[in-house]
Amino acid sequence: MIEFYFDVISPYVWLTSHRLKKLQDKLNLEIQYTPVLFAGLLNAHGSLGPAEIPAKREYTVIDAMRWANFYGLKYEGPPQHPFNPLKALRSCLYFKENKQRAKWVELLLDACWSQGLDIRQDSTLLSLAKDFKINGDELLQAIASPEIKTQLKQNTIHAVERGVFGVPTFRVEDQIFWGHDRLDLLELYLQGKLNIDLNKCKEVLQRPRAADRRNHN
Amino acid sequence: MIEFYFDVISPYVWLTSHRLKKLQDKLNLEIQYTPVLFAGLLNAHGSLGPAEIPAKREYTVIDAMRWANFYGLKYEGPPQHPFNPLKALRSCLYFKENKQRAKWVELLLDACWSQGLDIRQDSTLLSLAKDFKINGDELLQAIASPEIKTQLKQNTIHAVERGVFGVPTFRVEDQIFWGHDRLDLLELYLQGKLNIDLNKCKEVLQRPRAADRRNHN
Repeated sequence: MIEFYFDVISPYVWLTSHRLKKLQDKLNLEIQYTPVLFAGLLNAHGSLGPAEIPAKREYTVIDAMRWANFYGLKYEGPPQHPFNPLKALRSCLYFKENKQRAKWVELLLDACWSQGLDIRQDSTLLSLAKDFKINGDELLQAIASPEIKTQLKQNTIHAVERGVFGVPTFRVEDQIFWGHDRLDLLELYLQGKLNIDLNKCKEVLQRPRAADRRNHN
Repeated sequence: MIEFYFDVISPYVWLTSHRLKKLQDKLNLEIQYTPVLFAGLLNAHGSLGPAEIPAKREYTVIDAMRWANFYGLKYEGPPQHPFNPLKALRSCLYFKENKQRAKWVELLLDACWSQGLDIRQDSTLLSLAKDFKINGDELLQAIASPEIKTQLKQNTIHAVERGVFGVPTFRVEDQIFWGHDRLDLLELYLQGKLNIDLNKCKEVLQRPRAADRRNHN
């Protein structure tokens, strides 16, 4: 079982979703789609998102467009960014069955990143629900339910506890793979072709720091 | 001409140096090796380095070890990290001829990341100078010279002005490629196989923001 932590706010999550199905079929993987709030990860780790540093924001747009071009995907991007992804993330939790959830996540990501739809809006979610042949009113009710709101919070807390600091992140057997650009390493790991000495890793992390910036701001 | 911005403090710069020679030979590239101070980039952009966020620091070590394993490189890592890279960076500027500088940078990076030597120390630099068959005393004198100190500062300022926020970064024709994991995209770009609509990119960047975290700390 592989856990896939995602937030629809990231173009790299969208790019990942397009590669994931192929990898899943190739290696016959069971992948748990777990929505988390990226902003919650940043808050917990005292980190900054790419959209919060102007030069990095600019780079992220062109980088995502380059990858889209590489994969043959149409990039449009959402009408606003960053945007509040809460409703969209909660909508994923309406689907209890994992394969159905995966399909909904794909639909949602394509709507946002490829078609340029505003997935914050009820009207967009209702229209996608219609395409997906589910009851849109039921979906909106579920999104507003305390159970689903709590579940998204819990997902984010659990992700932080497991060392997740960004999206997309994959977790398998206590190993974390961060970024759509680490899918090749994940594949090698799953095939037993990555040999990492975890004791060496621990030893390296215990070495002293010899320089720190005085002021981070 | 491709500009390669690097700081020896990054394991990804070390990993890059091993792929770079092959790419250089394959595409017959002229690559300008430009040392910059990563901490200076972070200061200028108000950004945080991976070593400044505990979960990200931990991830970066295992990620670098995975890539080293993938490339068949021995990973040892420096005795302290982060460390003050100033002398090591200045030593690169002693070499005016680009190919010689590239070879020195490779030697320095392998000493630090593969052999685990402390490249902050004069004794290490003297020993490497001996291997490189140059006058070590001359090297140390150059490192201490105001000209070379100023040049490193200028390099960092110019890099920031050009939108560079991390290392390794490649710059070609006003296009930036950040990260050792973007060498494949760089190669495609150089071969004319990436088709990005820069006007679209500008339009996307002009769209409004619809959500920001209240507090970044």
